[in-house]
Amino acid sequence: MKQSNLFAYTTKEVSSDATALSHQLLLKGAYVKQIASGIYSYLPLGLRVIRNIEAIVREELEAIGATEMLMPALQPKELWDESGRWAAYGDELMRLTDRNDREFALGPTHEEIITYIVRNVLNSYKKLPLTLFQIQTKYRDEMRPRFGLMRGREFIMKDAYSFSSTDEQLDKIYLDMKAAYINIFTRCGLLFRPVEALTGEIGGSESIEFMALSEIGEDTIVYSTESDFAANSEVADLAVGEPSPDGIGTIAHAKGIEVGQIFKLGTKYSESMKAQFLDQNGRNQPLIMGCYGIGISRVMMAAIEQNHDDKGVVWPKEIAPFSVHIVPVDIKNETQKDIAEQMYISLTESGITTLLDDRDERLGVKLSDADLIGSPIRIVVGRDAAEGIVELKLRNASEAMQNTIEDAKKFVFEY
Amino acid sequence: MKQSNLFAYTTKEVSSDATALSHQLLLKGAYVKQIASGIYSYLPLGLRVIRNIEAIVREELEAIGATEMLMPALQPKELWDESGRWAAYGDELMRLTDRNDREFALGPTHEEIITYIVRNVLNSYKKLPLTLFQIQTKYRDEMRPRFGLMRGREFIMKDAYSFSSTDEQLDKIYLDMKAAYINIFTRCGLLFRPVEALTGEIGGSESIEFMALSEIGEDTIVYSTESDFAANSEVADLAVGEPSPDGIGTIAHAKGIEVGQIFKLGTKYSESMKAQFLDQNGRNQPLIMGCYGIGISRVMMAAIEQNHDDKGVVWPKEIAPFSVHIVPVDIKNETQKDIAEQMYISLTESGITTLLDDRDERLGVKLSDADLIGSPIRIVVGRDAAEGIVELKLRNASEAMQNTIEDAKKFVFEY
Repeated sequence: MKQSNLFAYTTKEVSSDATALSHQLLLKGAYVKQIASGIYSYLPLGLRVIRNIEAIVREELEAIGATEMLMPALQPKELWDESGRWAAYGDELMRLTDRNDREFALGPTHEEIITYIVRNVLNSYKKLPLTLFQIQTKYRDEMRPRFGLMRGREFIMKDAYSFSSTDEQLDKIYLDMKAAYINIFTRCGLLFRPVEALTGEIGGSESIEFMALSEIGEDTIVYSTESDFAANSEVADLAVGEPSPDGIGTIAHAKGIEVGQIFKLGTKYSESMKAQFLDQNGRNQPLIMGCYGIGISRVMMAAIEQNHDDKGVVWPKEIAPFSVHIVPVDIKNETQKDIAEQMYISLTESGITTLLDDRDERLGVKLSDADLIGSPIRIVVGRDAAEGIVELKLRNASEAMQNTIEDAKKFVFEY
Repeated sequence: MKQSNLFAYTTKEVSSDATALSHQLLLKGAYVKQIASGIYSYLPLGLRVIRNIEAIVREELEAIGATEMLMPALQPKELWDESGRWAAYGDELMRLTDRNDREFALGPTHEEIITYIVRNVLNSYKKLPLTLFQIQTKYRDEMRPRFGLMRGREFIMKDAYSFSSTDEQLDKIYLDMKAAYINIFTRCGLLFRPVEALTGEIGGSESIEFMALSEIGEDTIVYSTESDFAANSEVADLAVGEPSPDGIGTIAHAKGIEVGQIFKLGTKYSESMKAQFLDQNGRNQPLIMGCYGIGISRVMMAAIEQNHDDKGVVWPKEIAPFSVHIVPVDIKNETQKDIAEQMYISLTESGITTLLDDRDERLGVKLSDADLIGSPIRIVVGRDAAEGIVELKLRNASEAMQNTIEDAKKFVFEY
């Protein structure tokens, strides 16, 4: 994309509640724009990150046989009455009344809707197991919206729901989902730990929270420095420096951002909402359910928290808005302009997301914008371009390299 | 995808308000499921169509230099007060109050939000023109929701907004957008006409509606049978059979579904909301705006209306949920199962969206489901598969062809 079309301004105006550095970078780099407390627009740069995270989520969930669908945000009160949550949910549930005085919730989660959709359809053990997911906008009227996308009132989530005829089927999906989540967060460049968790108001028997380690996190995680071992009841009371119970590494404590959670729901919703199937013996049984969430916008926030320096974001490779940023030193110099455009076209046609800075700005402005945008590879096209030489720099390296144009392209393809 | 994962049931239960055949097919084929009046879930099949339409829209808009972003559905009253529309909009605007008694609208359109976002940023003629778009969920509290996705209360739209410093810039974007819309609706397989329109409550000076011809349409279009000429003031009063004023073809009348509309907004919002830029003479001027909508879910509805027979949908090639449907006659026959799976893997790996019917069902059930799903190409793997022969049938053809497996694959690749 050409930068003149990007609507990527930089601003120093950062609202006083933006105390987290990731929140400041989101606003300074025009990734998002706040519309009201806890409500944001995703500007083009921010949306590209969101779409990249979504693509990873989609790929990993489809790989374990989950199928995508899309449910509405408006949910009729009647279904929440069936589960009992209309009365139980409290002030965080946003509610409204339509022109005919029918009451609706703006969904913070979709257990009621999905159970309504599958009941009477998933009516035989032959049709089970099945896992459905959606990537969709959720609503929660937080008392104290904060840290930008971390605790918002309108936010993007992936939520998945599984339906099984036996506990063994649920166990398998739960483990598949755990493995998929580990792949997802790893590909998103997060340092994280899966942690045993309480099931809370969603209900159910077993749950794992995926915590991205971060100082702005709201929970404390007790984990092993060397292994994946974290915070179940065995370790929760251990102090920093003690040996990990699995024998690998020592105990550390850290703050964590919850970026995902998986639940064995069991029959809580299928019983209250009468979603039954015929088992092999011809008997009616309630569907055995699981639910599995990822906060897409929160993953973005956690990725910035963990990947930045004082100049801006250092995006993990797979979720960077652009892989390559081409910056001509002087866009009015025909040679530089031509070479930059040729490289831009060649990389773009090869499927590499490339941003071309076609603006007539000072080099200093362009380089500091490039740092804020944080593309993994920056290519500066300057005076030496006439001799076929460009400067290539990795965002996370301190030194730049001088390369021939062909070597620079080769480097990008192999990166 | 394997059909056992698809959640593609077929049902004969169709609600009594589903009078349009397209609406009946949507429900019967499990493309969507109604949650409340005018509020639908997109089931996996329906979502695939929506995503295909979105991909076409994205591609054509990016080709004219528009850039994607994403705005929230929740819009604070204060911004609608600035434009004067909070008071003017009436009962179709869904409204709610948060836990702190702040009022919000659920956006039916985003002029206020986009104007708020660009003001003070697009502050110089040097930054213009710029076109931004989003594909997002909209809300409108319709008095009479009907025809399924055609007049819903929660629906998916593409809305774009352009900002210019001169009328000439606006004229160019408006014509580029018109051309992009023609490409989009053509690729979606629609028979449509662009028609001059009134600007209505959105405001502005000039507008074109894109009308898909259909008996369930709510407007009458007067158009030429042979050319693109339609219904401006010159032809609005002409009777059927009269010669078209452009000399090509004769006049016909038809009902139309509005699938898109483009507007020259002018300065209506930039004046009331004070979104100004410095012109070349250093003077403050209001931004000159345009807005451009496409009803994504309505395009799906119109495509079904125009492309079906008594057995189901006959999807246009580019928006079909799957391009190829492979149906083994007997999934328990190892030869048929192996050949079907090999073809499925081979086509899928080549990037062709392929559905494999891996269910243990009677052939009749599988074939009638295949007709309802409407993939352009169906491949039946039966007894002759042992001799390397499969049956290939186009959804819109009456006769099937016997092909070798290799020829069938070749046919698919070249289709």
